[in-house]
Amino acid sequence: MEEELLMIPGPVPVLPRILRVMSKSMIYHRGDEFGQLYKEIVESLKEIFQTRNDLFVLSGSGTCAMEAAIGNLLSKETGIVCIANGKFGERFKEIADRYEADAVTPVNVEWGSSMELEAVKEALDNSSSPTVVTMVHNETSTGILNPAMEVGKLAKKHDAVFVLDCITSIGGDEVPVDEFGADIAIVGSQKCLGAPPGMSAISVSERAWDLMRDNKRRPYYMDLVAYKKSLEKKQTPYTPALPLFFALKEALVVIKEEGIEKRIERHRRLAKVVRDAVTDLGLSLFPKLNEISDYSNTVTAINIPQANGITDEQLRGGMRKRGVIVAGGQGKLKGKIFRIATMGNITEKEVLRTVKALEEVLTETSIASPHTPK
Amino acid sequence: MEEELLMIPGPVPVLPRILRVMSKSMIYHRGDEFGQLYKEIVESLKEIFQTRNDLFVLSGSGTCAMEAAIGNLLSKETGIVCIANGKFGERFKEIADRYEADAVTPVNVEWGSSMELEAVKEALDNSSSPTVVTMVHNETSTGILNPAMEVGKLAKKHDAVFVLDCITSIGGDEVPVDEFGADIAIVGSQKCLGAPPGMSAISVSERAWDLMRDNKRRPYYMDLVAYKKSLEKKQTPYTPALPLFFALKEALVVIKEEGIEKRIERHRRLAKVVRDAVTDLGLSLFPKLNEISDYSNTVTAINIPQANGITDEQLRGGMRKRGVIVAGGQGKLKGKIFRIATMGNITEKEVLRTVKALEEVLTETSIASPHTPK
Repeated sequence: MEEELLMIPGPVPVLPRILRVMSKSMIYHRGDEFGQLYKEIVESLKEIFQTRNDLFVLSGSGTCAMEAAIGNLLSKETGIVCIANGKFGERFKEIADRYEADAVTPVNVEWGSSMELEAVKEALDNSSSPTVVTMVHNETSTGILNPAMEVGKLAKKHDAVFVLDCITSIGGDEVPVDEFGADIAIVGSQKCLGAPPGMSAISVSERAWDLMRDNKRRPYYMDLVAYKKSLEKKQTPYTPALPLFFALKEALVVIKEEGIEKRIERHRRLAKVVRDAVTDLGLSLFPKLNEISDYSNTVTAINIPQANGITDEQLRGGMRKRGVIVAGGQGKLKGKIFRIATMGNITEKEVLRTVKALEEVLTETSIASPHTPK
Repeated sequence: MEEELLMIPGPVPVLPRILRVMSKSMIYHRGDEFGQLYKEIVESLKEIFQTRNDLFVLSGSGTCAMEAAIGNLLSKETGIVCIANGKFGERFKEIADRYEADAVTPVNVEWGSSMELEAVKEALDNSSSPTVVTMVHNETSTGILNPAMEVGKLAKKHDAVFVLDCITSIGGDEVPVDEFGADIAIVGSQKCLGAPPGMSAISVSERAWDLMRDNKRRPYYMDLVAYKKSLEKKQTPYTPALPLFFALKEALVVIKEEGIEKRIERHRRLAKVVRDAVTDLGLSLFPKLNEISDYSNTVTAINIPQANGITDEQLRGGMRKRGVIVAGGQGKLKGKIFRIATMGNITEKEVLRTVKALEEVLTETSIASPHTPK
């Protein structure tokens, strides 16, 4: 029997060589071997982030790193502007609402639509300084790539600290963190890096440290100041999830072997294969693009065709029966879209298997469905 | 070459059969297989906790669960009494200081000394209601087992919510959570449960929920209300660290196979072997016990003998050269004590290897040291 194929935006399938290193015996987390491992991971990730900022690895998922960013930055004196056109963009505001802030200003665009810079500019104009501005680079819930460079420039112009969630773009798309002007950038382990879930990494600029250093209400487990202090000894402040560190290290070796440019090119090519294939099958893409946004190169969001009456359960259930797991719509998009991720170490082979399964399900359902004109 | 032997209070050595299951392929974290896995882990842990309360597994270390307890419970209207006689007891206060509270009242006893119930009673008497009281059951930094039953009774009498850190006792010592009256109890994966690090579990009583439910400042990643809602669907609110779940499941099977009573008995026996052996070698134990405290049954804290002038580095470095890693003193105890853990799936064999290494180092140093009378 073929193994179930995960084509969801994380956890992604993990290469056997990466899985295998997790069976290594535990090591002393305050010893030299761990120090060397942590240092190598940090250095590799800095290269992939294209950043000269500090960088830390958290034993927690992407959401943990999102909260690390917000919780360490926000205080009574700080405002925050949360730009969102999907579930994960809105998550930043949900997190901000849990912390003390001078003001939390959402700039919401309809899910699946593109950012409007004018609205962001207006929110920043009206915001008291210092301000944090948050955005998701690759909005997985809708399949849109948001304009990081443009928003980064706006943030800089307004002297705002720019927090960019690159959880599902780093490792699979071009993300020059420093060039984007991202004071904080975040990646998740189980997305384009191709490692198992449970870890995240976060980069922090000098301007971000300025807001964090004297903040008395920083969270504890994800206290980035404590992370910085510990990194000087090549340690983490609390016990690290060792097997996941072993795996992440191996995943980064795999990336180095492929070469990051080739890897990004592969991600772009495979996302295009999916977009072309589903369009050929008569389906339509969910995102509404403008001149500064783009289709995601790591996950494709597709409308569930209303015309021929196929349901989410028929579509995804049919694919599941064929061993292919794709993602449904989240929140208000449940039942309206489905999503095919092409992240990590996925190849043409898996994409073709996915497209074939989709084609079979559509054919089967068209025949079976009374709504379809024969 | 023999493998390095970790005799530190976590991460502990992990059995090959537990390590191996981490090489399993990723599964869909919203599918039935994960749901079943999560359910089985929760049920096994509830048995080990001896609790009927809700229980959740967090993708984060023990400190993550400690913050989950404090962050979800505390608000402007809530007071907290943090009892401490060691580093981890004090950590609760450090975490509480990051959150809004009506008052944070430390009840500190010298590290290594035993709790005095009178001081706890006084703090609770002076505390405005509702109040949270925190204690570490097994204080790893000093090798003391604190009086959970007695403090639980006091908490109940004062209608306080009792948070008990059992990170290093559950799975290795008798911890009847409900009988102790612990509204929240916490365990870490990489201690007596014998699993790899990176996970923790937390149980929550109805009385604890009463404080949490309307708290607007609950942390986000470790929002226990979100955990409760997700558990109804046998899911976690955010992507779980899958390989660590696979390992924890297997570690719990190992515990079931051994039987929890036998396991506790083994932990008690091995800790006693260590205490007897080090006393025979002329060393003294660090904790100062009173009638309601006890030596830890999972970690032994030993004074570094000042008389014959051996240093921490000579002692632990000498053992390290012999492939045995023991822990040093933490914080103000650095250089003054060392600690031998006997947690998880450790057997007589590892304990004997440790004692032998210690004996060799002491003999060698006594000979080498000019301070030793010949």
